[in-house]
Amino acid sequence: MMDLKGRDVISFRDFTREEILYLLSLSKEMEEKTHPDLLKGRVLALLFFEPSTRTRMSFESAMKLMGGEVISFADPGATSVVKGESLRDTVKIVAGYASAIVIRHFLEGAARLVADTVDVPVINAGDGSNQHPTQTFLDLYTIQKTKGTLEGLTVGFIGDLKYGRTVHSLTYALAHFNASMYFISPSALRMPSDLLDGLTKRGVKFKETTSLEEVSGKLDALYCTRIQKERFADPIEYGKVKDAYHLSKAALNQLDVKDDLKILHPLPRVEEMDESLDDTPYAVYFQQAHSGVPVREAILAAVLDVKERG
Amino acid sequence: MMDLKGRDVISFRDFTREEILYLLSLSKEMEEKTHPDLLKGRVLALLFFEPSTRTRMSFESAMKLMGGEVISFADPGATSVVKGESLRDTVKIVAGYASAIVIRHFLEGAARLVADTVDVPVINAGDGSNQHPTQTFLDLYTIQKTKGTLEGLTVGFIGDLKYGRTVHSLTYALAHFNASMYFISPSALRMPSDLLDGLTKRGVKFKETTSLEEVSGKLDALYCTRIQKERFADPIEYGKVKDAYHLSKAALNQLDVKDDLKILHPLPRVEEMDESLDDTPYAVYFQQAHSGVPVREAILAAVLDVKERG
Amino acid sequence: MMDLKGRDVISFRDFTREEILYLLSLSKEMEEKTHPDLLKGRVLALLFFEPSTRTRMSFESAMKLMGGEVISFADPGATSVVKGESLRDTVKIVAGYASAIVIRHFLEGAARLVADTVDVPVINAGDGSNQHPTQTFLDLYTIQKTKGTLEGLTVGFIGDLKYGRTVHSLTYALAHFNASMYFISPSALRMPSDLLDGLTKRGVKFKETTSLEEVSGKLDALYCTRIQKERFADPIEYGKVKDAYHLSKAALNQLDVKDDLKILHPLPRVEEMDESLDDTPYAVYFQQAHSGVPVREAILAAVLDVKERG
Repeated sequence: MMDLKGRDVISFRDFTREEILYLLSLSKEMEEKTHPDLLKGRVLALLFFEPSTRTRMSFESAMKLMGGEVISFADPGATSVVKGESLRDTVKIVAGYASAIVIRHFLEGAARLVADTVDVPVINAGDGSNQHPTQTFLDLYTIQKTKGTLEGLTVGFIGDLKYGRTVHSLTYALAHFNASMYFISPSALRMPSDLLDGLTKRGVKFKETTSLEEVSGKLDALYCTRIQKERFADPIEYGKVKDAYHLSKAALNQLDVKDDLKILHPLPRVEEMDESLDDTPYAVYFQQAHSGVPVREAILAAVLDVKERG
Repeated sequence: MMDLKGRDVISFRDFTREEILYLLSLSKEMEEKTHPDLLKGRVLALLFFEPSTRTRMSFESAMKLMGGEVISFADPGATSVVKGESLRDTVKIVAGYASAIVIRHFLEGAARLVADTVDVPVINAGDGSNQHPTQTFLDLYTIQKTKGTLEGLTVGFIGDLKYGRTVHSLTYALAHFNASMYFISPSALRMPSDLLDGLTKRGVKFKETTSLEEVSGKLDALYCTRIQKERFADPIEYGKVKDAYHLSKAALNQLDVKDDLKILHPLPRVEEMDESLDDTPYAVYFQQAHSGVPVREAILAAVLDVKERG
Repeated sequence: MMDLKGRDVISFRDFTREEILYLLSLSKEMEEKTHPDLLKGRVLALLFFEPSTRTRMSFESAMKLMGGEVISFADPGATSVVKGESLRDTVKIVAGYASAIVIRHFLEGAARLVADTVDVPVINAGDGSNQHPTQTFLDLYTIQKTKGTLEGLTVGFIGDLKYGRTVHSLTYALAHFNASMYFISPSALRMPSDLLDGLTKRGVKFKETTSLEEVSGKLDALYCTRIQKERFADPIEYGKVKDAYHLSKAALNQLDVKDDLKILHPLPRVEEMDESLDDTPYAVYFQQAHSGVPVREAILAAVLDVKERG
């Protein structure tokens, strides 16, 4: 039995391989049976200083499916923050109303600051472009579930690899499990070199390329991300990239991919991935989004120390 | 036992006379006794792309009184929609977080699109100026409750009959029950002719008039709606109409109405109906609003297949 | 057993000394043990026509910790109010959805109007600069808890005593308990003379001063409030006052205060109180904020007549 009671969930890097595997197995347990009284009498505070439908709603659903309650604000304009109150004061007060806090904030480091300020467990639901650890847990969970294992997979990452925090965090996570990686991006949006150095030090095999075609046949999973127009000074340059990295059923049929390739995407998608993909066996991104509920159930249950026991 | 499990509630026209009567009788059951554990462990998603206090709050209250839980957004600005996500993607994801979806959207047809996209039951809480079926159920419920029957009533409709979706839907509904109808409106805001044609085909007796006085003595119920200033190019024209169709206790006392006349209004009211009416025995519009809770309880219980029995 | 069933909580002045003591003792009971089913099946409506994080969230937490449910709006822009609906109509409708109503409104007297309009209990969560009775209950509760008694204390009030509704209400409350009071403020922000007259009539000993130093040694408790820049026509004048009334650990160490002095503040604080105070034994303002939950639990339980016994 792993003891995660009272733990903050700020960065995926705070977790060992064993803790990760434990939480994934607890997520599976959560998905397989209901437990409507597990968190009865517990109140979770959701503090969203920045909007996020899917993250907020899946945390709410997770807490409520376990019999817990939620208090929240989703509009910082409606808080004492507008009267000049410090984030520290706000969360110190909220900590008296709730058993745990989930925070999304537009500033990097905000979640860590909150965790250092209050005694209740704090879960980071995204701090600026920095960390979003529960997203990485659900990415891993989806890979494990749809591939049958996390060990020794060959995983491609495509799109904006420079700014995509979900990609950065997931590469770090997969390094625990002997993954080989292909980084497929326009040259302007390559993986940051310090992250590649980190992978090298951990003995991870990886290769960078600008062409999906070149590597598509080797992939067990492909993780897509949105390429944002704002990243390009030249709209013509963006236009080229957008077309080259657009995934569709037709485009995929041109490629030589494994039959059991699984395609993930953190969503929302806009132009980078066509709806025609949705009904192919490759597409697991909606399943991935739905995994947000059992994974967040597991994390909440673990840090509040009320785990189902088998 | 009527089986409505998994049914979408998009338009009132999707329901047979028998299904309508069944849901009204289930509403009565819901009003008469509490059932605090009926929907325990179920989560309802409320997606309001357009504001609506009373509809949203009565759905929430209905779900919670049956022990269920609610996740919601009431501000589309705080969702992935602003990042360009399609409505289809948004609801596919939310469908993984909840047992059913209630949607209000500013576009006609949005609710049907959602119902065609997801597997969970979808309830239309208003799509543009099109349908709002749970409103019609509560209108019918109120008429049935306050008149003792739905059969063979003479019902007047007054105000904006051209744009009022609640009126259109209720006339359709009452045609199931041998109603006679009077349509009282300024000539610019008459009932659309295709709807009148439909009533004729179904054998409904009706009459159009511009004067309440002319028909007031015949009515068992009078359904009022708001006349909106924006409908008139000429403010002088609006001013005349507004005064002619203003209901008050004094105005009503001038008329020869039945003692048991019941006056309904979907609310909110503004200038068309005076507070002086509120304490007359005619006024049932607040009772009508309150009926939103048991009626929505019945609909939720029916589509989630957890009905009280016996 | 005090019977407060169905009572509105509009102004602190509506409560007798005995009722106050009863609610404080019920608050203590609420704090000491959990009662997760006490309000099962009850729905509380929170109507916030003005933002307030801490009040709203602590009411929500209170209701939910007792097994009750909450429906709410926190954004009047998303309600029928924007369509011109009267406050009376809005609350008449909401009263049909809930067992009790909590209202915050920007207009003085709004809560009383609502209480006169509906049959369910109404709790005032702040009406303009007028009343905020549950705040006064939690202020009293904190003083009683941290001082061991409410009887015969010497209490200082510092800051904006002219506009601070929490100060006005608390002085009224403490007059029930033989308190002596010191009013410490810049001359432009002195206590209103009618309130001082009221204290005199009730036999309360008090003294006004501009200097904390002069009276600091006599105080059992010090209640601080924010001085708002907007109150001063001359920014230089504000600057002087701000510095003179700034509390910090260093400033306090210069004064001769009792060892068991307790410092309260309704929060949010901005510049008037330094974070350096937070870890001194004097600071009880976060504890005070946290008391919002048990105090509001007690008030909700009392007016809904579902009190723990024994």
